[in-house]
Amino acid sequence: MKRKEVDIVYGIRPLIEAIQSKKNIKKLFLQKGLNKKSNAYKKLITISEKKNIKIIQKYNFSKLKNKNHQGVFARISPIKTYSIKDLLPKFYKKNPILIILDRITDVRNFGSIIRTANCAGVNAIIVPKKSTAIINSDTIKTSSGALFKIPICKEKNISNTIKFLIQSGLKIVSATEKSNIYWYEIDFSGPIALILGNEEKGISPVNLKVSCEKVRIPSKKGFSSLNVSVACGIILYEVFRQRNKLI
Amino acid sequence: MKRKEVDIVYGIRPLIEAIQSKKNIKKLFLQKGLNKKSNAYKKLITISEKKNIKIIQKYNFSKLKNKNHQGVFARISPIKTYSIKDLLPKFYKKNPILIILDRITDVRNFGSIIRTANCAGVNAIIVPKKSTAIINSDTIKTSSGALFKIPICKEKNISNTIKFLIQSGLKIVSATEKSNIYWYEIDFSGPIALILGNEEKGISPVNLKVSCEKVRIPSKKGFSSLNVSVACGIILYEVFRQRNKLI
Repeated sequence: MKRKEVDIVYGIRPLIEAIQSKKNIKKLFLQKGLNKKSNAYKKLITISEKKNIKIIQKYNFSKLKNKNHQGVFARISPIKTYSIKDLLPKFYKKNPILIILDRITDVRNFGSIIRTANCAGVNAIIVPKKSTAIINSDTIKTSSGALFKIPICKEKNISNTIKFLIQSGLKIVSATEKSNIYWYEIDFSGPIALILGNEEKGISPVNLKVSCEKVRIPSKKGFSSLNVSVACGIILYEVFRQRNKLI
Repeated sequence: MKRKEVDIVYGIRPLIEAIQSKKNIKKLFLQKGLNKKSNAYKKLITISEKKNIKIIQKYNFSKLKNKNHQGVFARISPIKTYSIKDLLPKFYKKNPILIILDRITDVRNFGSIIRTANCAGVNAIIVPKKSTAIINSDTIKTSSGALFKIPICKEKNISNTIKFLIQSGLKIVSATEKSNIYWYEIDFSGPIALILGNEEKGISPVNLKVSCEKVRIPSKKGFSSLNVSVACGIILYEVFRQRNKLI
């Protein structure tokens, strides 16, 4: 039996994104006593009515009691995933930026990376089939709905995927403490794939070995280190800075 | 009665930071069946024994059941806060970077900003006395213990604080969508204070008005925007990049 990875979307912004991304939503559940004055809320109601989504009030939200659901939720079919070999030709000429997540296990980090990647114009996010954060309603919420906008590729063997990307002309850049090169010392003008590693263990040695470049974001004080989604944002916006300066 | 803002620290890394920051911890509670092989765990036990902290096993963790406590917690006295007027002279000659949080209300965002700020060498974080995320055990956990390393200043009137900082020679930089200047187009070589605004409403107009510079981090796709802690990281590391290039 195939595992159903997602079935509930909650939060106003994620629901707007879900509806706009043509997710098959039939019913929208609204909690009684909700603040109906916010612009985001009004937008959600307007687009729901346009799409003929049935709005059901006074629903019991007990199943979401520990979630920041903002008084709204809906059921959706599981998120579709892709293969990078099928997708790459579609954006190959657009100077792509890809992200490879090497065993990122925290659902919130995963969601936050998706949100940041979408803002920075990343074309696809590649994750392994195993040892990775599941895609669930918390991922959607943390991604602020960006999960509906950016394709997720699930690959059986990440090392083979990296080899394929190198053969396709992408520069593979690993974010790692095991480097003396700062993140802004790399040329990001061409197609790139950025690897981000596990929260505790970092990038696996085999993937680190095949990387074209290894970059470090230093930490000034002691042994503390940046959160992986913040590190992701810093590198992606350095890519933006460099490419924008070239124009 | 003064509100006790924090009394429990959980998670391995936050506890190591708490003990190293000479927090008055008398007892460390460990959950039965904990994975005792990790290096971080071993370090926690070693430094606890060195400081003569009593280690108590088999404790009931039911009060922390929804928290990622990693099987460890301790009680501490509330986090001390400061006034920027008292602190500024201490690092005035060190080309300071300060952060002003204008009504950041999400505890996790607050914690994440503290963590990133500590990595980037920020000297102090200024928050208003009201309308701000409380300092609690979740803030400490999300900050990865950095809350023990970086001083937090609570100010009654943020606008007056900004005026004081301008008079003291700091450049006030607001991160806002209401600007056409990109974040890397500003000169960050001198002393600066970076203002980050409320998750929904942004920086209040009165604070935006007195800013010396307003900078924008663009978002490529649609109406989505960066998380405030990621935006904070991008700007702080642009400061690092510029200052490091000057050396």
